[in-house]
Amino acid sequence: MVEDATSLNNLLTQFAELPGIKVLVHGGGRSATKIAASLGIESKMVGGRRITDAQMLQVVTMVYAGLVNKNIVAGLQARGVNALGLTGADMDVLRSHKRPLKKMVMDDGTEQMVDFGFVGDVDKANGEMLCKLIAEGVVPVMTPLTHDGAGNLLNTNADTIASKVACSLAPYFDVTLTYCFEKKGVLRNADDDESVIPVITEQDFADYRDSGIISGGMLPKLENAFEAIHLGVQKVVITRSDSINGEGGTIIKQF
Amino acid sequence: MVEDATSLNNLLTQFAELPGIKVLVHGGGRSATKIAASLGIESKMVGGRRITDAQMLQVVTMVYAGLVNKNIVAGLQARGVNALGLTGADMDVLRSHKRPLKKMVMDDGTEQMVDFGFVGDVDKANGEMLCKLIAEGVVPVMTPLTHDGAGNLLNTNADTIASKVACSLAPYFDVTLTYCFEKKGVLRNADDDESVIPVITEQDFADYRDSGIISGGMLPKLENAFEAIHLGVQKVVITRSDSINGEGGTIIKQF
Repeated sequence: MVEDATSLNNLLTQFAELPGIKVLVHGGGRSATKIAASLGIESKMVGGRRITDAQMLQVVTMVYAGLVNKNIVAGLQARGVNALGLTGADMDVLRSHKRPLKKMVMDDGTEQMVDFGFVGDVDKANGEMLCKLIAEGVVPVMTPLTHDGAGNLLNTNADTIASKVACSLAPYFDVTLTYCFEKKGVLRNADDDESVIPVITEQDFADYRDSGIISGGMLPKLENAFEAIHLGVQKVVITRSDSINGEGGTIIKQF
Repeated sequence: MVEDATSLNNLLTQFAELPGIKVLVHGGGRSATKIAASLGIESKMVGGRRITDAQMLQVVTMVYAGLVNKNIVAGLQARGVNALGLTGADMDVLRSHKRPLKKMVMDDGTEQMVDFGFVGDVDKANGEMLCKLIAEGVVPVMTPLTHDGAGNLLNTNADTIASKVACSLAPYFDVTLTYCFEKKGVLRNADDDESVIPVITEQDFADYRDSGIISGGMLPKLENAFEAIHLGVQKVVITRSDSINGEGGTIIKQF
């Protein structure tokens, strides 16, 4: 979403028009892959997830916290939004620890212990500090990097950051967490872009998962969504990035 | 100073130990030149100043706001300093305009109108917003990028940013502005690293300039220093980056 200038401009305009208190969390993986390639660094992925070695950590730090984050901040300032770009290290808003080796099922079906490198699993989001900024009219723009408190930046999944930040703000506000992606919502039929499931309860999710209607990359997204609901977020919306202002998408809430 | 890991670590440790309220402003030109070269982008300089075309703006945005700034922030957090990295676009702390074409004397003595590209001349530093952060115990870490309020980031001289930020804080605090560079201070004799001039008044500066004792890149640094003094900064110190905590260096103040 953030890689194409027109889409990004549309998203920023829509985001600027959103009423109320708001926080933006962005990614940038495609830009990182492109810049890494220009620097002669190969992007290694396992099961759709990036392996972040020392060189790749430098690249994602440049691309996420620099190129992507600061262009979003400047773009929002131009739209009258008092944006502030943040990694988790800034004001210690997101503390994490380096992910230990993880057992993964490879494409060939074998299991393997995978070292994801400089990747962070979030321990704590500092909702109190974010609230102080919000009280000053500041709109936090979060980049998918956290830190371990020992001087190391760690590459961290943007969906996870969005969920952790939403939960950290739940004691202070009625929070809606909106995940933007390239589809109109969670689809009943992957081949039919119009087959959006309007509402998913936890029981629905169990049924859809067991029957294979929902699978692949949507599973962790929905698990994140229900975790956020359990931790106090009012509503999660999964929608297309050109529709953050409108109706539609898939709604997940506590019933 | 920020390009070598050992020097940077020493500087961060010293900075963390500095008592009182503080703000850090960093550069990163050498890293930018190196990364640009790895990307096959040539660094163009005129009179020691970088020409920032669109590609180079992307590089400095990645290197200054990403790689350098966020590693400093994480390094300070590890030392107990609640650092927050900022470009001028973040919370609109530094607004600038794109530098118009400027008449420059070339190496061959001829004059030429030079387009520095996406380079910003600072209009306003938002001392009030910085004060609010400082009141929360936050230590701003400023990167040499500003914005024009129309969505454009602009590459901006770090010495100028330091001076503008110092002046913007002068109504609220007794401000000392410390410039770190590779020498122990302003030298009476460029070939003798020990010939530091301990104090320079405005009259001294006029005399040193007229007699050629002070020349070259030190002239704008000192002009910036006296401008800051006129705008309310108590004291300017020019010293080596390993001595920000100690005595020594050259002191510029209003007498």
